[in-house]
Amino acid sequence: MTTQDYAALTPETLPRRLGALPALVERLGPADGWTVREVGDGNLNLVFIVEGARASAVVKQALPYVRLVGDSWPLPLKRSFFEYNALVRHEARDPGSVPAIYHFDETQALIVMEYLSPHIILRQALINGQRVAGLGRRLGEFCARTLFRGSDLSLPTAQKKADVALFSGNVEICDITENLVFSDPYFAAKMNHHTPGLDGIVARLRADLSLKVAAQHLKLAFTSRAETMLHGDLHTGSVMVTDTESRVIDPEFVTYGPFGFDTGMLIANFLMAWFSQNGHEQTQGDRAGFKDWLLSVTQEIWEVFAAEFARLWRTERTGILYQATLYEDQGHALASEQALSDLLGQIWRDSLGFCGVEMHRRILGLAHNADFESIADEGIRAGCEARALAMGRQLMLGAGAIHGMDAVLAMARRMDGEDHL
Amino acid sequence: MTTQDYAALTPETLPRRLGALPALVERLGPADGWTVREVGDGNLNLVFIVEGARASAVVKQALPYVRLVGDSWPLPLKRSFFEYNALVRHEARDPGSVPAIYHFDETQALIVMEYLSPHIILRQALINGQRVAGLGRRLGEFCARTLFRGSDLSLPTAQKKADVALFSGNVEICDITENLVFSDPYFAAKMNHHTPGLDGIVARLRADLSLKVAAQHLKLAFTSRAETMLHGDLHTGSVMVTDTESRVIDPEFVTYGPFGFDTGMLIANFLMAWFSQNGHEQTQGDRAGFKDWLLSVTQEIWEVFAAEFARLWRTERTGILYQATLYEDQGHALASEQALSDLLGQIWRDSLGFCGVEMHRRILGLAHNADFESIADEGIRAGCEARALAMGRQLMLGAGAIHGMDAVLAMARRMDGEDHL
Repeated sequence: MTTQDYAALTPETLPRRLGALPALVERLGPADGWTVREVGDGNLNLVFIVEGARASAVVKQALPYVRLVGDSWPLPLKRSFFEYNALVRHEARDPGSVPAIYHFDETQALIVMEYLSPHIILRQALINGQRVAGLGRRLGEFCARTLFRGSDLSLPTAQKKADVALFSGNVEICDITENLVFSDPYFAAKMNHHTPGLDGIVARLRADLSLKVAAQHLKLAFTSRAETMLHGDLHTGSVMVTDTESRVIDPEFVTYGPFGFDTGMLIANFLMAWFSQNGHEQTQGDRAGFKDWLLSVTQEIWEVFAAEFARLWRTERTGILYQATLYEDQGHALASEQALSDLLGQIWRDSLGFCGVEMHRRILGLAHNADFESIADEGIRAGCEARALAMGRQLMLGAGAIHGMDAVLAMARRMDGEDHL
Repeated sequence: MTTQDYAALTPETLPRRLGALPALVERLGPADGWTVREVGDGNLNLVFIVEGARASAVVKQALPYVRLVGDSWPLPLKRSFFEYNALVRHEARDPGSVPAIYHFDETQALIVMEYLSPHIILRQALINGQRVAGLGRRLGEFCARTLFRGSDLSLPTAQKKADVALFSGNVEICDITENLVFSDPYFAAKMNHHTPGLDGIVARLRADLSLKVAAQHLKLAFTSRAETMLHGDLHTGSVMVTDTESRVIDPEFVTYGPFGFDTGMLIANFLMAWFSQNGHEQTQGDRAGFKDWLLSVTQEIWEVFAAEFARLWRTERTGILYQATLYEDQGHALASEQALSDLLGQIWRDSLGFCGVEMHRRILGLAHNADFESIADEGIRAGCEARALAMGRQLMLGAGAIHGMDAVLAMARRMDGEDHL
């Protein structure tokens, strides 16, 4: 692939350039009947909705730079290749969890896929106070199935090693996570910004040596523990929902990493949604019921994840790790259960740590959350954010001593009434 | 590379086939004056010593199968490519620690390298009761330098990720470690064998559920924690020595793995050398002084490793992990020291675990150690091996509670007087 042959699409050029593509024409009808809108609101890419006479589709195209920052920050088009490869694996490992893929063009760094309608971004639904039936179950199962089935617990190890090698090429995307998540929030890095009222707590966090050590231990885990194929960016902006359905999108941050990374990032974004609700009240307390629902979903994500992971452990453990040959076949099923319990414990502790850094970087780093950003009143926003920051610290430093989601949710509830500015 | 073009060398064909190779001719003189001996005593390869009029060299050639087992167990020639790449990196990261490399031929899977003379294999020296000056320092420094400098503590991360991808191709060699080290010893696998008198303790170990869980946790660590480039087979048969010099050879088991793997395997082989000494006595107690020396070397390996790793941490921490930007540059040098201490603690615990499995697999698995095998009296041999087995178990299960090498050596001394049959 040469980047010379690449050209960014526009709504005007798209019908001409993609008008002969069977994947589109066969679904949508002839290109002269297409309507094209660019709707990308993420940080990196172009996203077009192409509506034809018969149906619609999405065309996602990578830009050769970070959209959020501009062409001063180049980013390889190859991430589209990694995203495509991740989507294919997600579909195989958890059928129906991601949009259907119609076409991939590596040179143009574009993926043609199912247009999800009337789906909206989950983050926006949570800001609106809209509930989604089955959300916790869907996300818990997605994590369990994709994480279990991408690892040496399940895959033939030659295939797992080939995928480790493949996704090791996603260097510049990993670099974003490595810097923006694990390092920048913990010192006054150039691209950081935060709500003015937070100066006090930010100074305290950045002076907290143990916290800065914990953040880098988590970074070591992220960069070295090639346990399974991660989504890599599994926040509430990477999920599209209706009232009753959820799909996971945008796995371009795919990399091999620790089992607990996706789960931790997901939980973090639910906790941030929760801490942000006070800023979205119209009248005092009108989000109380929705807040309870948010925590129940958070709980369900973990419970379903752990249960589904355990089910796969007991029924699909075909990889080179913890083989039945060594356990069940020797009459030692209890050893298998002991190992599962240890591993889920490790994933839990890792999840809490990654949850903490995600809560910090979304408030202190470059890429913030609409959950907080859409709170117009800076004082209220700072109060909400300070609670999330304080909780992130407790999760990172207390991961070994927080023994279940009940304790996490109790901590969130308690902190919601505290002033951490 | 096609294996069709490959042909195994013999002492007879070598001068004709390699007689035009500048790397050999320029050093050794014309091929018609060469004397060739095949001396490979390892488990996998052909090793030729080529002596010319002016000098000598070694030609190491991979066979397309496991030499120890025969052509029923095929093994890709590509391991020679990985070995070459590892040797080049070892030389760059710890100059002088490995034989000089003169030539590499990927198609013929052969490496032409320095003939180390009058070096012998360290394992044989330890069986003979020969001391090697500077041994602990040399091996401790080798581990610290190659492990530190192959990791994200030091390398540009794009280079580290490219090497992770490169060495991920060493699948069949990793498969040997994954099966023979971490799984086979813990059940009655087909290729296992052990000294008859051990049946009792072997049955007890294989009924020990927590031990079998610990072994697989270590296997998960080995297969997933791509922390640094490992030698991968750093036992006393992979070190060549004179009375005063030591060089590390044979890194064909190279893979990215946990920092503590090489150190653990190395310590295991010194402990096994120590437990085997009672079987090499001519008169009772005549190895007492040598045994003290063995433990002093074991201690020195770890102490030098830790000190050199700390020195590199403080002076060469140029990678993406634990950046000075975040610590020293913020006046938080104490955080850097705290992180170093945590990491060395983790490496220590990992080392003890890997040490334990190595002690088990060398007595229960396919590939045994000459240290024990050369003890003719089966009863004495079984007694020595049983102590090593018992100690391996304590290290694997007690790793978190054994706080320094003093405790390990005290355990070895105590067990040396115990009957574990």
